[in-house]
Formats: sequence, C-alpha cells, structure tokens
Amino acid sequence: MAGVPEIAADAVLVKSEQMPESSEVVRGYDFNEGVNYHKLFSSMSRTGFQATSVGQAITEINRMIDCKFQEIPSDKRTEVNLNPCGRELTNCTIFLSYTSNLISAGTREIIRYLVQHNMVDCIVTSAGGIEEDFIKCLAPTYVGDFALPGKELRLKGINRIGNLLVPNSNYCLFENWLLPILNNMVEEQNEGTKWTPSKVVARLGKEIDNPDSVYYWAYKNNIPVFCPALTDGSLGDMIYFHSYQTPGLVIDIVEDIRLMNSQAVYAVNTGMVILGGGIIKHHTCNANLMRNGADFSIFVNTACEYDGSDAGAKPDEAVSWGKIKLTAKPVKVYGEATVIFPILVGETFASRQKEFQAFHSK
Amino acid sequence: MAGVPEIAADAVLVKSEQMPESSEVVRGYDFNEGVNYHKLFSSMSRTGFQATSVGQAITEINRMIDCKFQEIPSDKRTEVNLNPCGRELTNCTIFLSYTSNLISAGTREIIRYLVQHNMVDCIVTSAGGIEEDFIKCLAPTYVGDFALPGKELRLKGINRIGNLLVPNSNYCLFENWLLPILNNMVEEQNEGTKWTPSKVVARLGKEIDNPDSVYYWAYKNNIPVFCPALTDGSLGDMIYFHSYQTPGLVIDIVEDIRLMNSQAVYAVNTGMVILGGGIIKHHTCNANLMRNGADFSIFVNTACEYDGSDAGAKPDEAVSWGKIKLTAKPVKVYGEATVIFPILVGETFASRQKEFQAFHSK
Amino acid sequence: MAGVPEIAADAVLVKSEQMPESSEVVRGYDFNEGVNYHKLFSSMSRTGFQATSVGQAITEINRMIDCKFQEIPSDKRTEVNLNPCGRELTNCTIFLSYTSNLISAGTREIIRYLVQHNMVDCIVTSAGGIEEDFIKCLAPTYVGDFALPGKELRLKGINRIGNLLVPNSNYCLFENWLLPILNNMVEEQNEGTKWTPSKVVARLGKEIDNPDSVYYWAYKNNIPVFCPALTDGSLGDMIYFHSYQTPGLVIDIVEDIRLMNSQAVYAVNTGMVILGGGIIKHHTCNANLMRNGADFSIFVNTACEYDGSDAGAKPDEAVSWGKIKLTAKPVKVYGEATVIFPILVGETFASRQKEFQAFHSK
Amino acid sequence: MAGVPEIAADAVLVKSEQMPESSEVVRGYDFNEGVNYHKLFSSMSRTGFQATSVGQAITEINRMIDCKFQEIPSDKRTEVNLNPCGRELTNCTIFLSYTSNLISAGTREIIRYLVQHNMVDCIVTSAGGIEEDFIKCLAPTYVGDFALPGKELRLKGINRIGNLLVPNSNYCLFENWLLPILNNMVEEQNEGTKWTPSKVVARLGKEIDNPDSVYYWAYKNNIPVFCPALTDGSLGDMIYFHSYQTPGLVIDIVEDIRLMNSQAVYAVNTGMVILGGGIIKHHTCNANLMRNGADFSIFVNTACEYDGSDAGAKPDEAVSWGKIKLTAKPVKVYGEATVIFPILVGETFASRQKEFQAFHSK
Repeated sequence: MAGVPEIAADAVLVKSEQMPESSEVVRGYDFNEGVNYHKLFSSMSRTGFQATSVGQAITEINRMIDCKFQEIPSDKRTEVNLNPCGRELTNCTIFLSYTSNLISAGTREIIRYLVQHNMVDCIVTSAGGIEEDFIKCLAPTYVGDFALPGKELRLKGINRIGNLLVPNSNYCLFENWLLPILNNMVEEQNEGTKWTPSKVVARLGKEIDNPDSVYYWAYKNNIPVFCPALTDGSLGDMIYFHSYQTPGLVIDIVEDIRLMNSQAVYAVNTGMVILGGGIIKHHTCNANLMRNGADFSIFVNTACEYDGSDAGAKPDEAVSWGKIKLTAKPVKVYGEATVIFPILVGETFASRQKEFQAFHSK
Repeated sequence: MAGVPEIAADAVLVKSEQMPESSEVVRGYDFNEGVNYHKLFSSMSRTGFQATSVGQAITEINRMIDCKFQEIPSDKRTEVNLNPCGRELTNCTIFLSYTSNLISAGTREIIRYLVQHNMVDCIVTSAGGIEEDFIKCLAPTYVGDFALPGKELRLKGINRIGNLLVPNSNYCLFENWLLPILNNMVEEQNEGTKWTPSKVVARLGKEIDNPDSVYYWAYKNNIPVFCPALTDGSLGDMIYFHSYQTPGLVIDIVEDIRLMNSQAVYAVNTGMVILGGGIIKHHTCNANLMRNGADFSIFVNTACEYDGSDAGAKPDEAVSWGKIKLTAKPVKVYGEATVIFPILVGETFASRQKEFQAFHSK
Repeated sequence: MAGVPEIAADAVLVKSEQMPESSEVVRGYDFNEGVNYHKLFSSMSRTGFQATSVGQAITEINRMIDCKFQEIPSDKRTEVNLNPCGRELTNCTIFLSYTSNLISAGTREIIRYLVQHNMVDCIVTSAGGIEEDFIKCLAPTYVGDFALPGKELRLKGINRIGNLLVPNSNYCLFENWLLPILNNMVEEQNEGTKWTPSKVVARLGKEIDNPDSVYYWAYKNNIPVFCPALTDGSLGDMIYFHSYQTPGLVIDIVEDIRLMNSQAVYAVNTGMVILGGGIIKHHTCNANLMRNGADFSIFVNTACEYDGSDAGAKPDEAVSWGKIKLTAKPVKVYGEATVIFPILVGETFASRQKEFQAFHSK
Repeated sequence: MAGVPEIAADAVLVKSEQMPESSEVVRGYDFNEGVNYHKLFSSMSRTGFQATSVGQAITEINRMIDCKFQEIPSDKRTEVNLNPCGRELTNCTIFLSYTSNLISAGTREIIRYLVQHNMVDCIVTSAGGIEEDFIKCLAPTYVGDFALPGKELRLKGINRIGNLLVPNSNYCLFENWLLPILNNMVEEQNEGTKWTPSKVVARLGKEIDNPDSVYYWAYKNNIPVFCPALTDGSLGDMIYFHSYQTPGLVIDIVEDIRLMNSQAVYAVNTGMVILGGGIIKHHTCNANLMRNGADFSIFVNTACEYDGSDAGAKPDEAVSWGKIKLTAKPVKVYGEATVIFPILVGETFASRQKEFQAFHSK
C-alpha cells in the first residue's frame, strides 16, 4: 500500500504456509443444539485453552479404561503373583492420587464412588486425606466462606479449610473412635503385627464399617492406600497423645515403599490420575519410574511450573525422569479439581459403570 | 489423657460452638444416581472450593435473569428514553465482558448464542475480541499446542494464541475485507459521520452479514459493543496502514464513554458477567460505579489479588469503589472461562431459552 | 543388585551423557561473604527458577542500555526524521509499559526516576496509570490491607486498590484540578487542536508542573506516553461529567496508533520492559511487530499462559507473531513488579546513572 | 455540575472520612538517593502489594530473632529438659521449613549458611530436600531451561527440576555412597537401634562430613530435621533396592511425631519460616498447634487459597486451627523463594551474624 513503511507491511502481512490437513478447526459448542452436556464436553477439545485439556483428559482416561478392560497378554501373566499385594491384576493398574482437601470437599463422594465400584487400583493421599474421610462418618463438614476471620473461628472452636468449616468437636469424636483401635493395634504389634501406613488405613477402613467411607470400600475391594506421612495430621495428633498412654507403637515406612513400588513394577500397564500436588503427586510418579514410566497420565491442579516445584511441574518434566513413558500422551488440566474432576468422571468412569460391572463379574 | 502435655491436649481438643442451624453440609454428587449433569451442577454449591463458586455463580446469573424478566416498576419507566442508545430497556441490563482470547477460542460460539438470542444488553471487549470474530468468518483458527516453538511458527507465518493457531493469511484476508470499508468510513466522515469505536463495531457487524458472527447479531439486535482501545490489534494495524493511503479517519473515545456510562446510569437494575481481566473488567465495573453499583456480578478469571491488579481484584474491592452495590452477592469463580463459562450458560441462559423467547415476543 | 526387579534398576540407574562443558553449576550466594546485594543479584542466574530469570533480566536490560549508548550506524541515520515524534533518536528505543496499579504503588517513584533521567523513550500505560500519578500530586495514597471489607470502606468513602487505600476526596481534588484544563482543551479544539490520548497526557504533564510526577518529566523530556483507552478510569469519569457542561471534546485514537507504531518502525533497535499484562503489554508488542520484532524484551508479571491470555503469554508466543525478533533473548520474570522491578532497576539503570548523564550531555 | 446525572455525580464524588493519623503514605524508594539496597528494602513496606509483604516479613523475622536473643523468663526454665531433643533451648525456637526444589536450587547455600551459624532450631523438609543436599556433595546440579524437551533429556539420562538439570549419574553416585551406610544401619538395628527419619538424616549428615552440606551442619549443631515421608524420593528408591539385598530395615514415623511436636510444646516461644507448601508447611504448623500457636510466622510461596489447599492457605486459616497465635502478626509473601528468601535473610539473619555469634558464645 502506497506510503506504508515497508518493514511494517512486510512484517504484518508475512505469507503463511498451509496448515496440515489434519488440523482441527476451533469451534465451540452451539447451544442452539440444546443443553446437551455430553455433546458440550465432546466439543471441548476443539474449544481451546483448558477446555482442550479437559477434552484431552477425557480421551486419555477412556484410553486408560479401555486398556484395563483388555485381556492381559499371555506373556505378562506370569508376573502376576510377584506383587505382594493380594489384589487381582488387570491389564491396566490405575493409580488415583489426591490431596487432603479433596476429601474435606464433596469430591470425596466422587472418589468414594470410584473406589466402591472397584474402578481404581491404588490410592495415594496425605494424612488429612485419610482422617477427614473417617471424621465425616462421625460428624459433618460444613460450607463456609474463605473470608471468615480466623480469630473468631478459633474462639468458637471451628477450623477452616478453604471455604469449608470443621467444628473442632469432630476431632474429639475422632479421638474417641480412634484411641481404642490404637490400643488394639499396640496389642497386636506385641503379638507380632508389623504396622505400616497402608496397613493402618486398611484397618481403619475395616473398623469404620460405613459405606459412605472411601477407605471402607478400599478395604472391601482390596485397594491398597499409600500415605507415607501418615502422622502429619489429626491421626498424628492422636498417635502422639496415645504414645503417652501406651507407648511403643511403630509404623514403618520401609515396607510400604516396597509395596508401593511393586504396584507399578508388576503392573502390565499403568495409568495415573493425580489431583493436586505435593507428596501425593511425587509419590505416584516416582513409583512409576520403577517401571520406566506410566502409560497414561492425568494431572489436575492449579500450580504452575515457574517456581520449580514438583507440584507445578508439567508432565514433560516427569518424562525426563522416566516417570511417564516417552510414547505416552499425558495431559495436565490447569483447574480446580472440585469443578474439573466430576466432569472427567462423568464422561469416563461413571458413564461406563456397566462396562465395569461386566468386567468385574467375569 | 495421662502424661500428654496439657497445652497440647487443650489446644487440640478445644471445645466448639454449635454450628448455626442453616449451615449447609458438604456433600458432593453421588454418581450412583447416574450421570445427571444438571443434578451434578446443582450439588456444586455444597461441594466446596471453586465448585461452590460455580454453584453460586449459577444462582446469581439466574437471579439476574429473573430480574430481567420482571416488569419495570412504573416509577422507573420515565427514565427509559434518556439512554441515548436505541435499545429497549428491560428491568435488568446485562453487561457481558470478555477478553480477546475468548473469541479466538470456541467460547465465541457460546457468546454468539447469547447475542443471537438477545440475552445480554451490552458488550465490552478488547480489539482482538472484535477482529477475531470477523476473521473467523473469513478463515478458521486451529487447535495447536502451547509448546509449539515461536521461531518455527514465525518462519511458517503461523501466529499462536495460547494453544490456538492463526495462519497469518487470515489477517491478509481481513485486510482485503476491511480496507474498502475503511474507505467508505472516511467518505462518510467527510459527509458528517462522527466515528466512535462502538459505531465502527456496529458497522462491521452489518458488513460481515454472517450469522456465525457475534457482532452481526449485536448489530441485528441493537446491542452496543464498547471497545475503547479499538486500535490495539489487527484493526489498528489496518487503520494504521490505511492512514497512509487515505489519511484523516478520526475515531473518538469521548462520545463512547458517555454512551457506555449511560447504559448503567439509565438502567433499572444491572448485572455484570465478566470473563477475564484487564480493561474489559475495569471498564464494565467503572460504568456501574456511575449508578452506585451493579446489582448482580459474576467474575470468571484466573488472576489473584496479591499483585494489586484490577484483573485479580475480588468483587469486594469493587464494592469499596461503589462499582458493586453494598447489598449485592457478587461471585468470583477462579477458573478458566473456556471450561467454566459453557457450564454457567448451560445452567442459566441456555436452559431458559424458551423463557427468553416468550419475553422477547411480548 | 540381587533380587531387585530389573526394570526398576534399569529405569532408575539409566546412564547419563556428559553435560556440555559450558553448563553452569547451580550455586547460590554465600552470605559468609557478607551482605553484598550486588554479588547476591549477580549470583541469581546460577540459583535456579525465578532467580535465574531475575539474573537474566538484569543482563538483558544491561544489553539494551549498552545498545542505546552505541552510536547509530551511519546507514540508519537517514530514517531519523521520519518519526513524527520530536524526540531525538538513539541506537535503542526503550519502551517502558506498566499497568495502573504500579503508579498507585510506590513503583511510581522508580518509574519517575527513569523518566526524570530520560532513560526510557516511550511509555505505554492504562488510564489509571495516568491519573493516579497526577492525583498523588494532590493528595496521598495510603498503605492498607487486602482484607479490609469493601462495605465498610465504601461507607467511609475510601477506595481500595489491592492493599492500598485512596480516599475518595482525592478524586474530588482531581476533578477540581482537571475541569478547567478540560475547558481550555475544548476551546483549543475549537481553534483547531486535534486531541489524542498522547497529547492529553503531555498537556496534563505540563499543567501539573510537579517534579514528583512521572508525566511532568515525560513532558519535559519529550517522552511520548500512549494510552489508547484513556477514558477507562477517573479521567473518563471527569470527561463524562464535563461533557454535560461543555460538550464536544473529541479524543482521537487513530492519530496515536500511527504515532505509536512509528516509535517502533523508525527506531534503530528497540527494547521492551513490560510490567504487568493486558493492553499495555499487547500494545507495546504489537507496535514492535511493525518492525518485525523487538531486539530486547523483559516481561515481569504474575500471569501464566494456560488460560490463553495475552497477559500470561510467554515471550515465545510473541516470537510467533513477529513481535520479538527470532534472534532475541527475551526474558519473562514470574513475579510481582513492586518487588522485582526495583531490583532490576538497581542493577541496571540506577547503577549506570552517570553513564546516562554522560550520554545525554554529549 | 449542570446536566450530569445526579446518581453518577453522587456515586463518584462520595465524601470520604479522614484517614487515621497513623496511616502510612505510599512512597517508593527514590534512586536519586543512590543504589542503596538496605534503604530500598526498608522502603518496601510503604511501596504496596508484595513489596509491603516483603517489608513486613523482614520486620517479623527480626522480631523473631530479637525474641530468640532475650533471656528465657525464669518461670519457663524448668520445662527445658522435658524436650527429648538434646538441643539447648533459647527464648524462641525457630522452625525453618522448605520444599525439596529449594535444595536443588541455589537457595541451598542460603539455608546452609543459616544452619552452619546455628541460626535456626528445627528443620522440616521433604525427601528430595534431604537427598539433593547430599547428592550435590557428590556431583553438581546444572542450570538448564524450563522448555527442554523431556524425551530428549530422558534419552540422555538427564533429569529436569524446573529449569535445573541433574545428570542421572549423580543418583548412581548417591547409590554407591548410600548403600554401605544402609548396610551399617541394618546391622545397628539388629543391635537395638530404632531408626526414625530424623535419626537417618542426622546419621547421613555425619557421614557426608562436608561443610557444603546443610545436614552436615544440622548434625554438628544438633538441629533436628524432620521428614516424615523420607522414602518419597531417591532415598526411597535406594532403600527399596537395598531391601532386596538386605531386608528388614524399619524406619518408624511414630517416634518422630512425638519428637517433632515436642519441639513446639516445650519451646518458650516459636517462629516459623516456611518456604513453599505441601507437607513441610502443614507439618510445621500442625506441630505448633500443640502449643496453641506459633508466635511469629512467615510463609513464602506462590500458591493461592482459592483451591482450598493447605499449600495456598493464608496464615489466617492457620489461626482458625490454633496453629498461629491469635495475637500474632503472621506474614505471607506471594513470591518465588529463590528470589525472595535471599533478600529476607540479607535483611535479618545475615546482617545480624555478629549478634548470633555473641549470643552463641555466651
């Protein structure tokens, strides 16, 4: 165009190569088709940004489940009994990992559903992720507000977890429930039982005997639960108190690291669904390093990589360590799990419940 | 308990007051009830964290719509004609504001749906939020990947927006489409037309004449679109180029600030649905200061308040300025709009399409 | 090791290639050398994560300044007069861009220092970034707290910006100061002046006549200030009010886009220092597209790329657009500018003040 | 003003109350006073946003140190010997907690300085925060880039931690160093030693015998180090491998929870300096619940509260639990610790090194 500085015209109107044939056109859901959430979620991979990630995560979890439903190749069958965990092997071992706050939140019901229907194979969580499940069987957690002043709450004996409220009396009920069990555990230790975090969780799952509990179903379905820092929470408080009354309880983390790693090593294929960051994320990925990488991986969290934390690390960082396979298609969804995870489950596990039932009744 | 340090026992087992009767118990959706997304989203306010915010945002948008459907009180009717914008007044003027990337993404189809069905009353966006809508009528945007290297893309003439790709030839098509219109606009200016950003957008909406376009429908439905920094994007590039060929075009931002503020001042009630941050957020809130605060407010973005940005500011900061009413119940959802906004629309505007049709055909 | 599952041993103990000779060893500052901040900041590039980015940003800004101090190559000299802006060209045109909140904060004094000493060549900001500077010449902004309740503040007439407080009376003082100037501007318009945002800012900088003001010095040093959405703030409120008393003021954004782009097009080299996101970031980068990319680039902000916003986009996205040169070494620091920017200035501009003085007195 | 809609004028020009006399005026550092970082950092509390937080954190850490240097009140002296840890009590027990990545980064040297000079009293970290310190005594970690592709790195045997690179051979060296020690530990266990994570760390600190190591100095200065999930990292990998060769090692976490809580319970006053989130943050705060709250608290991290994570929780959430005293003035700095922590140390511990020397030589 006459007069336009040439450098500007050239820079702005640079020629472009043809896009590859397979390129997907961006196009969101059209509500003129009605409010059809399944169609809406199916369109997300073509919507961009985190909608794309949600769409890809749905695909990846469904691939994980497809793999689980396949028969174990005959040459892999021999390894089955090497896993010290009694759980029957499938063609894909699914690790479900989550931070404690997701048990405080209503995500607990989503998790409990997955465990109840035996849809996942191994759980990794932190201490709060254990105890809050049991405490909820004793008394409820309430919806509050992020902005409630800490001082006023403390004076009322109400503890805040984000926008949730837990009356302190819930922890007193927990103490009443737990202490006799700890007594028994010390006795059993004296008779030869060697306690590990996973054994403690299984025992508590048995004791709670309540179908609302995640760990009741983990116990019933023989799904191992790993929580190396089991003492970092109310459970630790109670164990600490109990140690003055009845000293001597030992909870060993060495036996559990071997059991945890074995879940990955003796698996045929593995999938990881990791909600949140911190130890639960690292622990799951690290176990999968032992098999030279997970086959299917989903991270859902709000952390970013720029601070060099494992919490914020993208799946590609795990690839460099051999924690995710070089050929895998891992997906990270940047989002808050209370919103994202129910959608992922709705489009995968929950809509395939009948397939799971058929699979398990084989 | 014997031996336990008293300070520890006292601190841990502090007594708690009774929770208020109205306190809501945390309980997530139970997929044993089937995959019913409406029920799932209805349970979100009781789920905690951002699920709670999503649940509250659904409620707040529905309150906004309920208010819109009510008759204008007779004592407010007189003010109607004071608004220099020709649009017919309803009992709640709904501002929809969004950043440019949401038009690049498939969220554009969601927004177009709302504008097509005349569900919102005033739009605020940035320059890219205008031009990318028109460009998509000329050639598609594609799904790519956040990690594609910039250098390789530039050498191929492909521009990246997050994980989306826009071939540079799209902007050349845009130039071809736009320049004759700019020529006409200069001619009309010489004949007395005074251009403002909102007039330019309406004119382009008329010219594109394409039902895929957000601004086609905004033009058709007489919904004003405000974009004070209209030159900050490809539109500005083209206007800059065009100024060498045919100098003299003037686009005035003073007339638009009066028109924008009037949308709020002469409204009976107002609601704000603001996706993203920056100028589009501030501009909408600032106009609502002119009426001493919006009645209903929803922010959806990923920014946090700690950097003192307006983008990350919570609704309560806007309350301090009088941009949101003291009595309002504004909601901020921390989340990415491509995932969150379709859900909000699905549970509000889209599931109430028939009500809107009845309302508009009155 | 006997018995260890082979797959695990192989995966964990994979052989590694030699690191390249040039690889830098991670090693932080040793305070046994005393509290020497210059040494500390010099060690940051070897410290990792955002310390590395801070270290790289210091290097990049110093390269930008080195470039500025070089003589303009003789073959580039001819282009000088093509820039419609009167400012004398140097070998590197430095764009400084920042969001409004950084003028509300004490970062204003850092920015004022740079402008006072004529260290930068072009400023891009948003409306609040203009008006808050003038308002601070009339009455102070105070330190408050992020958690102060909006309702209480509104009832007291105190506005909150993050953890800062601005009494509403400051804006009344601003009105008193501004309205007579607007009157004069309308008169001058009637006599032929064509107003643009950059001309308005220069005029206000002249009127304030106060060495505390950023824009006083911008006016004195002939540094153009671009702010396309000048009406999006208190300035817009006042212009809106004033339009009822004295209608007719026109502020044109077309002339400014040409002036803005010319800063980049006719520059010999360019550097961008961009604090925060939104329009100020996009506008600066977009102008640099007109020269096929900036030579030196620093972004400091807290936003992440995952939401597809321009605010969070990494420099590499700008490379795909031709906004940053293919050969450049742009740096993004993820951090809050009130903490990061003073350090960057301390290790670059401020410690080279004498060099600037010598350069300007040539 | 004539004609201006009354509601707008009233809303914008609302009267404001006088600010309290004590209100601090926002004013940043003026580099016209020269590049004086101590003055710069002193001005930060008046600068706003996170600069304010940095300024407050400096004040709070100095209060913590002042408290430490005071004599223990005579009525508190009696409790000293109840703490099973041999470390001599001071008037303020300082907990330093950090995530593993800060040992991978050069922050390790800052931490080592604090431990070397016996400036902190109790350390909490995660497994990587232990092993990376020892590994760095065997071979270096390198500066890389966040964007290096995981696949290429894995094929070269190079592991990425953010923008840092650790050749896999470093972990092989670690194995060679560690396995004989594990052998000895099993032997000692057979002779009656009961291992806990803190005892393992102390033992490794003794074995490394290298003044570059944080845990060498922790061992020398009798500073307990807590790491409940000690097996969640390379240490766990090695312990897992070793368990095939020499089974039977037991590492008990019950004894450590009692030891950890005792650090808080038997302290006269406590301060917490917590860098990052996850277990290290929760574990430190939870121990301080045992004394009904820490007296001084600093959080430095990049996480936000909106996802309900403990990582992102503000200090005020900890107040609701009794983990921070009702009367305390805790500070959270939203920022990346590699940049922020060196500054905090420079303005507190490091500039008071002589005071520490005098205090310890009493």
